Amino acid sequence: MAKQTFIGFTQINPQLADFKNNANLILEKIQEAAKKNCDLLVFPECALFGYHPFDLLERPEFIDEQLKELDRVHKKIPKDIAVLIGLIVRNPKKMGRPFYNAVAMLEKGKAPKFFYKTLLPTGDVFDEARFIASGDLKKNIFKWKGRKYLLTICEDIWAWPENGVSAYRENPLLKIKKQKFDLIINMSASPWYMGKLDQRIRVARETAKYFKSPLVYTNMVGAQDEIIFDGQSFILDAKGKLVFKSVAFQEALNIFELKTLKCSAPASENLDPIEDLRRAIVLGLRDFVKKVGIEKVHLGLSGGIDSAVVACLAADALGPKSVECIALPGPYSLPESLDLATKLAKNLGVGFKKINIDESYNSLLKNFEKEMGDVAFGVTQENLQSRVRGIFLMAYSNLKNSMLLNTTNKSEFATGYGTLYGDLCGGLSILGDCTKAYVYELAKLYNQQSELIPKQIITRAPSAELRPNQKDQDSLPEYAVLDQAVENIVEKCAQPKNKVEEWTLQKIYSSEFKRWQSPPILKVTSHSFGRGRRYPIAFKK
Amino acid sequence: MAKQTFIGFTQINPQLADFKNNANLILEKIQEAAKKNCDLLVFPECALFGYHPFDLLERPEFIDEQLKELDRVHKKIPKDIAVLIGLIVRNPKKMGRPFYNAVAMLEKGKAPKFFYKTLLPTGDVFDEARFIASGDLKKNIFKWKGRKYLLTICEDIWAWPENGVSAYRENPLLKIKKQKFDLIINMSASPWYMGKLDQRIRVARETAKYFKSPLVYTNMVGAQDEIIFDGQSFILDAKGKLVFKSVAFQEALNIFELKTLKCSAPASENLDPIEDLRRAIVLGLRDFVKKVGIEKVHLGLSGGIDSAVVACLAADALGPKSVECIALPGPYSLPESLDLATKLAKNLGVGFKKINIDESYNSLLKNFEKEMGDVAFGVTQENLQSRVRGIFLMAYSNLKNSMLLNTTNKSEFATGYGTLYGDLCGGLSILGDCTKAYVYELAKLYNQQSELIPKQIITRAPSAELRPNQKDQDSLPEYAVLDQAVENIVEKCAQPKNKVEEWTLQKIYSSEFKRWQSPPILKVTSHSFGRGRRYPIAFKK
Repeated sequence: MAKQTFIGFTQINPQLADFKNNANLILEKIQEAAKKNCDLLVFPECALFGYHPFDLLERPEFIDEQLKELDRVHKKIPKDIAVLIGLIVRNPKKMGRPFYNAVAMLEKGKAPKFFYKTLLPTGDVFDEARFIASGDLKKNIFKWKGRKYLLTICEDIWAWPENGVSAYRENPLLKIKKQKFDLIINMSASPWYMGKLDQRIRVARETAKYFKSPLVYTNMVGAQDEIIFDGQSFILDAKGKLVFKSVAFQEALNIFELKTLKCSAPASENLDPIEDLRRAIVLGLRDFVKKVGIEKVHLGLSGGIDSAVVACLAADALGPKSVECIALPGPYSLPESLDLATKLAKNLGVGFKKINIDESYNSLLKNFEKEMGDVAFGVTQENLQSRVRGIFLMAYSNLKNSMLLNTTNKSEFATGYGTLYGDLCGGLSILGDCTKAYVYELAKLYNQQSELIPKQIITRAPSAELRPNQKDQDSLPEYAVLDQAVENIVEKCAQPKNKVEEWTLQKIYSSEFKRWQSPPILKVTSHSFGRGRRYPIAFKK
Repeated sequence: MAKQTFIGFTQINPQLADFKNNANLILEKIQEAAKKNCDLLVFPECALFGYHPFDLLERPEFIDEQLKELDRVHKKIPKDIAVLIGLIVRNPKKMGRPFYNAVAMLEKGKAPKFFYKTLLPTGDVFDEARFIASGDLKKNIFKWKGRKYLLTICEDIWAWPENGVSAYRENPLLKIKKQKFDLIINMSASPWYMGKLDQRIRVARETAKYFKSPLVYTNMVGAQDEIIFDGQSFILDAKGKLVFKSVAFQEALNIFELKTLKCSAPASENLDPIEDLRRAIVLGLRDFVKKVGIEKVHLGLSGGIDSAVVACLAADALGPKSVECIALPGPYSLPESLDLATKLAKNLGVGFKKINIDESYNSLLKNFEKEMGDVAFGVTQENLQSRVRGIFLMAYSNLKNSMLLNTTNKSEFATGYGTLYGDLCGGLSILGDCTKAYVYELAKLYNQQSELIPKQIITRAPSAELRPNQKDQDSLPEYAVLDQAVENIVEKCAQPKNKVEEWTLQKIYSSEFKRWQSPPILKVTSHSFGRGRRYPIAFKK
């Protein structure tokens, strides 16, 4: 019987630039894999550095620190195991970008071997071409213990055209002589959004089928500012069939036998898409708070649907004891809104405070009118209310060292239906990439077992409560129509199909200045507002 | 006597995506050049589209509209003149990015000829690789009326190493057979910053000397959000000697004879660097306001140096009638601060209002303490004052449809010495890339003729006036030292050289979350905060 080869692949959650802890995490996984007789252990892309480095790469000291930790890992590797660790290394040449997005292959007592990424993503949230030089994929074929491997790093397998179109002029895989590999390895830090897994499987499948070779795809887990990594590492057989998928949104170490592709654990099932969305946002918020080093969050709880869902997600992610909800009723708030907010906070078990803004709002308005003369009721007063709420919520931040959660949804961000320095405040926007429809879907999910969110919050008409009897639909199209328009225009970059979509496009253009100053937004769709979408402010609309 | 060839080059100020007006501007210049018997007229890069397009390129309708205007220009071209117009065109191939950064050569009755840009900048504020495919510079050699030209677009000449280092692996110029051209043409949209002109001349000189050919460099004028284009187009002879430089920060059309390189106008002198800085900021502000479609600006005038200089620049850029200064004295403001602000506003002839914040601040604090209990005096109260000012300034925006100017300087942005949603508010930051030293230099410049800025504003110690007897230097290093640290760390990306620089680096890292939500910042140095600097928030510091 031929000797079996056991391949481990582990989806870990490193922190950007936290080299010592990342190295410790890597060493832990190596020990665990070694105990399980794993021969070769595969980590995600940039497992040691963390991802996405953005402009940290303009400071070479990060690389130096990271390489020290690589040495430490190398020295502690047990015998009889080889590991593939994603990291950033220097480009020794003086021409070209200063670094490579690389993989180090480490074995006890052997010099490390390095492999480089060839395709560098520069669209959406990606900025690799700023500091990373392109490698040569042909050099990423290696033999080890009698087996032949092709090592690819994330984007390297993404040049396959879709409907005949590709962002890349050349597919580097097609420059490799067609041949069978014992295994194609892909090490990724691939951001999640709804529908992304299918796309990954598509490009991995093209790759597996082209070389008639099995493929293991190892993805990062965890969140980095706006970006959420979901893991969901998988194995395809030589025909491109999915034979195993690992868990979503949590760390895992899986091991399979190379000939049979039989995995140590049962495959993880696909979840309901809204449950996936919930878990993504929960991970995104939890990691942001943890990685920034904050212990508490708070939010303005209005009795409306958006802040209700933010409260649920926050309690879900951080535990109710770390969440404070603050109701800020004002002159045009309905009494039932406060009741509903109070009830929800009680249901969630989160902290709850009330600060009535009437007096402060009146004082500010009087103060302003003393100098400016009487101001006819309008956007000035509406924004004033929103900004007084912002002030109290930020004062709470200062006092309690707590982070304010923004409660704006994507439909609002798109149309600029929000007050700059008012309800657009916050350290992180966790619903900012969810149209109103998804906010309702998340509310339904939280109410699946019992009425966590008081029903009326879900059923009554949305209102900013900034003027008497105001409804969102006084100024906005019906959300069902608006959401469609936002998806069509923002996510699909399509032409407006009707009057509402034309109106929406113009609103999007005219509110760029607000989004320029918006908080980071957890990305959950293919095209989120945030750093991955870079529009100018001053242009002809 | 051999027939003379007259080359025109014109630095124009197009608006991003304003195709009809850009085409009209281009046609105007063509008419003017034709009248002056110009044979070949050169426009800047992207003259028809405007620059930097950023993600407008994800919407193909912009390209369609632009190409319609190209047709219109083509139809109206007089005979006996050829023009080179920068624009964006489609990449007909389905593999690769969807567009080219291109030049159209137009002549009456002939099919347009297109040339493509090869090197695509992706560092700092540039993002071309997102949507632009790379051309092949070798194809940009053309003969016209018996002369031989090499056409380069902006970055195409920037791969020459400096001190042995280049951001590009290959210099596309070196792939062109060494040969003499009658003229090398470079069409640029090159952002200005202090010292940039020397860099442009350096790379242009390397190019001219390599081919032993004269070179004309044609640069855009005008501002686009954070980026300021300065024109300063120039001519080098075949030895790389500067024989002509056009004006800075304004449009111009110059014509020279190809054999003699003799230009129609006298060369423009270099200005004092601080005068250059003033003109850059004035253009940046003026164009932002004009291109966004706002007519008025206002600012909080504290009696401190930063807001004083912002007021001078605003009055300078827009005329005093378009500028309103608002003094917002609070519980810890010195009476002399109000006096100084009043005096400065009078000197400038700008509008002036006073809103005392005491009552509103006290009301808000009382309101907050009613719920939260007594709050020991500290950052909560300090930020509360700053945010009350922000509220009034934004209420003024809403009421008067006026844009708030941010008054934060670079030393403050770097250290996070500013209140989010307070003094960090504003539609545009015009001093945000100037360290405190440059703010003083600008003040000196404005006081060169007479004491426009009351002397005491310049001489007294800077203070945020948020607590009794507060001075900036209670929390910050001496500005002279801090400014050095900011330049060393931010602009040079160098290692901290001493305790102050280490402190500054940590402050920079810990305040990333504030800058994520900051207004656009006019870029005037090689490394500005703003869209060209992309740091994460959640990383190990």
